[in-house]
Amino acid sequence: MCDTCGCQLNPEHAQDSRVVEINRSLLAANQELAEKNRSHMEQMGAVAINLISSPGAGKTTLLEKTIEALGERYRIGVIEGDIETERDAERIRAKGVPAVQLTTGGACHLDAALVHKGIHQLQHQLADKRLDLIFIENVGNLVCPATFYLGEHKRVVMVSVPEGSDKPAKYPRAFIGSDLFIITKTDLLPYFDFSIEEASGAAKALNPKIETICLSAPTGDGMDEWMKFLAGLVNR
Amino acid sequence: MCDTCGCQLNPEHAQDSRVVEINRSLLAANQELAEKNRSHMEQMGAVAINLISSPGAGKTTLLEKTIEALGERYRIGVIEGDIETERDAERIRAKGVPAVQLTTGGACHLDAALVHKGIHQLQHQLADKRLDLIFIENVGNLVCPATFYLGEHKRVVMVSVPEGSDKPAKYPRAFIGSDLFIITKTDLLPYFDFSIEEASGAAKALNPKIETICLSAPTGDGMDEWMKFLAGLVNR
Repeated sequence: MCDTCGCQLNPEHAQDSRVVEINRSLLAANQELAEKNRSHMEQMGAVAINLISSPGAGKTTLLEKTIEALGERYRIGVIEGDIETERDAERIRAKGVPAVQLTTGGACHLDAALVHKGIHQLQHQLADKRLDLIFIENVGNLVCPATFYLGEHKRVVMVSVPEGSDKPAKYPRAFIGSDLFIITKTDLLPYFDFSIEEASGAAKALNPKIETICLSAPTGDGMDEWMKFLAGLVNR
Repeated sequence: MCDTCGCQLNPEHAQDSRVVEINRSLLAANQELAEKNRSHMEQMGAVAINLISSPGAGKTTLLEKTIEALGERYRIGVIEGDIETERDAERIRAKGVPAVQLTTGGACHLDAALVHKGIHQLQHQLADKRLDLIFIENVGNLVCPATFYLGEHKRVVMVSVPEGSDKPAKYPRAFIGSDLFIITKTDLLPYFDFSIEEASGAAKALNPKIETICLSAPTGDGMDEWMKFLAGLVNR
C-alpha cells in the first residue's frame, strides 16, 4: 500500500489473471488464422515479408525502391497497415503495383484477421491471382507488431540511423523474432553518433541467426544485398 | 466467411465484447490512479510533463539539454519509461538530477500504476521531498501511450525531422491529447523533405489548442521557446 496517497488499487495485479487469459486466447486465435494466411499466400505462389519499424524509418521508401528495381522481374503486391490514411498505399500504387490499405482504427499493430482481409482485397486486384512477393508493411511501431504473427515467411526489422544504435537493446522482441535487420538512412551516418557495430552486435546477441544489411535509399548502398536476400526467397 | 480458405474465425468479432469490457475497466482503474498520481505530485510542489514520441525522436537528449539550462533554477526529477535497460536514467543521473527507471517488461506504454511506483522511488531520492518539475519520459511509441493518462499536467508530443511531416495525420490520437508539439532535429531540415507547415497544420487541425515549437538540440534553436513554456508552468 502506498503510504503517501493511501492507494490500494493496482490495476496491474488486480486484473492480471483475467487479462492474461484473454490475451492468451486472442493470441492463439491469431496464430491459427496466421497459418491460414500463410497457406493462402502460398497458394497464390507468393513469399510474404512482414516489415516492422518505428514511424519514419523508411519502410514505404524501401518498398518504392524495391519495386523500381524488381517490379519488372517479379509480380509484387503490397499490404499497407496504418492507423489512419490511405497515403502509403497511394505511394505504392503510383509505382504500378497492386496495393491495399488496411487501417487499424487505433490499434498499434496488424493482426492476422486484418491481413486476411488484405489478402482477399489484393487478390481481387489480380487477373490471374498470382504473385511472387507480398510485402506487408506493419503499423509504425517497434513494440506490439513483434507479438503478432501474420503468416509471413520472413520478418524484417528496420532501424534508421537518426533513431540511434541503442534500439535493439531497448526493443529486443522485434529483433528476437526477425530474420533480417536493415539499418536505413546510412547516408546520415556522418551527422549522427550511430554505431553500426553496436546495433548489429546487439541484434546478433539477441538472435544469433539475424543478418544485418546497411542501406541508404538515396545513394543505393546496400540495395544489392537486399535484392539478393529477396531473390533467395523467390527462387527457393 | 472467406471463400478461398474457408475460414470462419475472426478473433476481432468473436471476442470483441469481452475485450471491450476488460479494456474499459482497466482504463477506468488507470484514470482513478492517475488522478492520485497528480495530487501526489502536486503535494510535492511539482508540475508533471508526459513526453510522448517514437523511439529516437530525441526525448532523452531534450531532457539533458533542459537540465543543463534549468537545473540550477528549478528542482527537476525524471521518471524514465522503457521496455528494457537502465540507460536513459543513467544519462539523466549523469546530469546531476534524480532519475528513476521504470521497465515495463514488454508493455508498449507506461500506465498510472507503474508511474505511481516511480513517484515513490523518486521521492526516496529527495531530502526534502520537493520538486518543481517532474518529466515522465514515456516508452518510445507514438500509439498506445496516447491512451494512458498518467496524472501529468501537460502532455508533449515530439516528432523528429527524419520521421517525416505526415506523422500527425497518421498518428492522430497522440496529437489530439497533447498540449504542445515539438518538431525536433530541425538542423536536419536541409537533408529531408519535411514540411513544418504540413506537420504543424495537421496537428492544429486535429487539436486547435496545440502549439508547435521547432527545436534543434545541437544548435539550440527553439530552446528559448521551450524554456518559456516550462517557466510558464512552474510560475503559475
